[in-house]
Amino acid sequence: MPGKLKAFHEFRSAMNEKLLSKGNLQLKRFFNLDSQVYVDGALPGKTKELMGLVASAVLRCDDCITYHMIQCADLGVTDEEFFETFNVTLIVGGSITIPHIRRAAETLEEIRASGKRKRDKRGNGNMVNRQAKSGRKGGIGRKDKE
Amino acid sequence: MPGKLKAFHEFRSAMNEKLLSKGNLQLKRFFNLDSQVYVDGALPGKTKELMGLVASAVLRCDDCITYHMIQCADLGVTDEEFFETFNVTLIVGGSITIPHIRRAAETLEEIRASGKRKRDKRGNGNMVNRQAKSGRKGGIGRKDKE
Amino acid sequence: MPGKLKAFHEFRSAMNEKLLSKGNLQLKRFFNLDSQVYVDGALPGKTKELMGLVASAVLRCDDCITYHMIQCADLGVTDEEFFETFNVTLIVGGSITIPHIRRAAETLEEIRASGKRKRDKRGNGNMVNRQAKSGRKGGIGRKDKE
Amino acid sequence: MPGKLKAFHEFRSAMNEKLLSKGNLQLKRFFNLDSQVYVDGALPGKTKELMGLVASAVLRCDDCITYHMIQCADLGVTDEEFFETFNVTLIVGGSITIPHIRRAAETLEEIRASGKRKRDKRGNGNMVNRQAKSGRKGGIGRKDKE
Amino acid sequence: MPGKLKAFHEFRSAMNEKLLSKGNLQLKRFFNLDSQVYVDGALPGKTKELMGLVASAVLRCDDCITYHMIQCADLGVTDEEFFETFNVTLIVGGSITIPHIRRAAETLEEIRASGKRKRDKRGNGNMVNRQAKSGRKGGIGRKDKE
Amino acid sequence: MPGKLKAFHEFRSAMNEKLLSKGNLQLKRFFNLDSQVYVDGALPGKTKELMGLVASAVLRCDDCITYHMIQCADLGVTDEEFFETFNVTLIVGGSITIPHIRRAAETLEEIRASGKRKRDKRGNGNMVNRQAKSGRKGGIGRKDKE
Repeated sequence: MPGKLKAFHEFRSAMNEKLLSKGNLQLKRFFNLDSQVYVDGALPGKTKELMGLVASAVLRCDDCITYHMIQCADLGVTDEEFFETFNVTLIVGGSITIPHIRRAAETLEEIRASGKRKRDKRGNGNMVNRQAKSGRKGGIGRKDKE
Repeated sequence: MPGKLKAFHEFRSAMNEKLLSKGNLQLKRFFNLDSQVYVDGALPGKTKELMGLVASAVLRCDDCITYHMIQCADLGVTDEEFFETFNVTLIVGGSITIPHIRRAAETLEEIRASGKRKRDKRGNGNMVNRQAKSGRKGGIGRKDKE
Repeated sequence: MPGKLKAFHEFRSAMNEKLLSKGNLQLKRFFNLDSQVYVDGALPGKTKELMGLVASAVLRCDDCITYHMIQCADLGVTDEEFFETFNVTLIVGGSITIPHIRRAAETLEEIRASGKRKRDKRGNGNMVNRQAKSGRKGGIGRKDKE
Repeated sequence: MPGKLKAFHEFRSAMNEKLLSKGNLQLKRFFNLDSQVYVDGALPGKTKELMGLVASAVLRCDDCITYHMIQCADLGVTDEEFFETFNVTLIVGGSITIPHIRRAAETLEEIRASGKRKRDKRGNGNMVNRQAKSGRKGGIGRKDKE
Repeated sequence: MPGKLKAFHEFRSAMNEKLLSKGNLQLKRFFNLDSQVYVDGALPGKTKELMGLVASAVLRCDDCITYHMIQCADLGVTDEEFFETFNVTLIVGGSITIPHIRRAAETLEEIRASGKRKRDKRGNGNMVNRQAKSGRKGGIGRKDKE
Repeated sequence: MPGKLKAFHEFRSAMNEKLLSKGNLQLKRFFNLDSQVYVDGALPGKTKELMGLVASAVLRCDDCITYHMIQCADLGVTDEEFFETFNVTLIVGGSITIPHIRRAAETLEEIRASGKRKRDKRGNGNMVNRQAKSGRKGGIGRKDKE
């Protein structure tokens, strides 16, 4: 896993753990709600992760964009779908979103490179995706969202 | 068509016409781009309209929310799907979005009432939806977006 | 109770009721969290309502401002305290917040006039405040927040 | 003067007066700073009013847009210049600004109609402009900004 | 003083000095207003610093959050009070504020570690707080705010 | 060219190239519109670049601020004009913009140092400006905006 993504994961995990251990009940409940809102329901989880991505992008939060791109990639979102999402972002949010889209395009490259490395190591890329999906349904692996 | 939706349509159409007649080439081109970004592509039009809705909602623009809700309803978005979209809005955007969600819930009632009236009059609701969809693919009927 | 405040209360109550009856479990849980966050804790409820007010003001949401001003007034916030809150808003958020502060100043007049009417009718303004406060501690009367 | 502009002026003047009479020294000083920032300096007042307009537009505050459009019109900004300003708004801020641009286009019509009425009455439009400009340089007539 | 806090202080002091030496009278007056708005008044300085913190947090400005956290810590804000402030932020501003809260939690650790170092060195932590407070009342030490 | 500006240019060019090669037609068209909106028209290009700068500043996007400052400097904007632009930013957008203004003041130093180096090397600063301007009119050299 390349440098930026790895650093993102490590800082996020470490600090979320601290927030949840030091934070009050309210904060824990909010994090819990946040982890439930993107699971399959009337709308498929993939659509909701794309919504989370576009919302993060027009609100211009790089970490939130990175988080939702990782989730989207796990759910099989293609490059073409990512770029159409960037288009909606660009039209709704204007040129002020361009620097975030530039960084998102770089993040996409890291995600694809990271996915390729994992597949090379395990010899089975599909399995990774299947695990990721089933993990989500079971409600684990997302405790430390955003 | 109830009062608020009708007033929204009339003001929007009248002013868009003026903007396009008085505005410069740039403005026309932006409006054109804006009408193309939500058509079927790698992602279905419905997913992109939902993205447009959630982006409008976290950015808290009532008119944009109303516009995308009308488009979504034309594409068959159900009440349950609307409410899951409001949930994503609420979690990503926080309680500051609640007044907009309240007004969106009222808009949804007007849209459903308006749809029912149309169906009662024409005796065929599906036809309306089919027309709306094919109209979109042809690229007409959306010139005056937002 | 003057026109604007009354209209605010009525629309808010009616739509919150609908949101809670039609909405999903997630939405109900968020509303619940939202009602708990302003009660007395390490920080007094009054400080947290003032925080809610200043956050609503710099994010420029008139309905949220109105809501928190009503809560603050119930908790005994004085005119001088309101105006110092507007000052923090103005400095942090800039002149773009001025139209909202103008409307907030009008809301304050309505709240004071409404409070005076209630006191005149009941002959006991303090009791009203005490009830409001104890109602909050019991966690009721705020289900329909924002 | 047509309805909307007149209502804007009256509410703004009435409430600014109240803010300045009830408000503290801080608020008065901010209002004072706010009235000085748009006068001629290294950059001409007209350029700074256009900056105030575009800033208000991308931050999506209708009252601020109306205020700066009135100031810009007084300083001789043409329709073509207003529409290029809307273009910058649209590109930087995206389609989320369109409803505000629609309302701004309506405001522009009211401003022009109001200007025409004044010219018809006084028989000298240029004089009005000259007065407005000299009034600004003298630092009067802007005490109740935004 | 750990790395991040030290770097924040040094860059902020250096650039504020330049802004105040190169900037015009307007800018100086704004900085002056900004330094006065958080002193004791109808509301205690601590409440107003907490308001400044929550406003900075929902507007998602890391440097502003860091600045107000330092001020709050100097005024004796406890960890529990900080976490309740983060809760208000989270509810009002939504999950988009989470990355800022994570970084704020890290800043809090640095502030506490830095305070401990100072106490160990001087053998008197209370004195530090008293000095900080009296310094504020005297209106010094905050000229270079934000 | 000092470190920060150089890094900005290199990352921006590299990623814009990727966006334009991988992105769809929509994205290319938006980038094209974005490059046309700041050229001379009813309003001079310099005024529109200053508008772009103030819009970027109140929306608090450091990369967009840097980009427009470079364009403005190429068009001859003086230090005094930059500081009056920061003033408008500060008044409209409030103290939340101060950290961005601090970084902008640092960027201004780098731009001036970089300009001086170029002039020293070529022995002709005006030529640089003339080239930059004519390049803009021809519509080249700005393909990779923002």
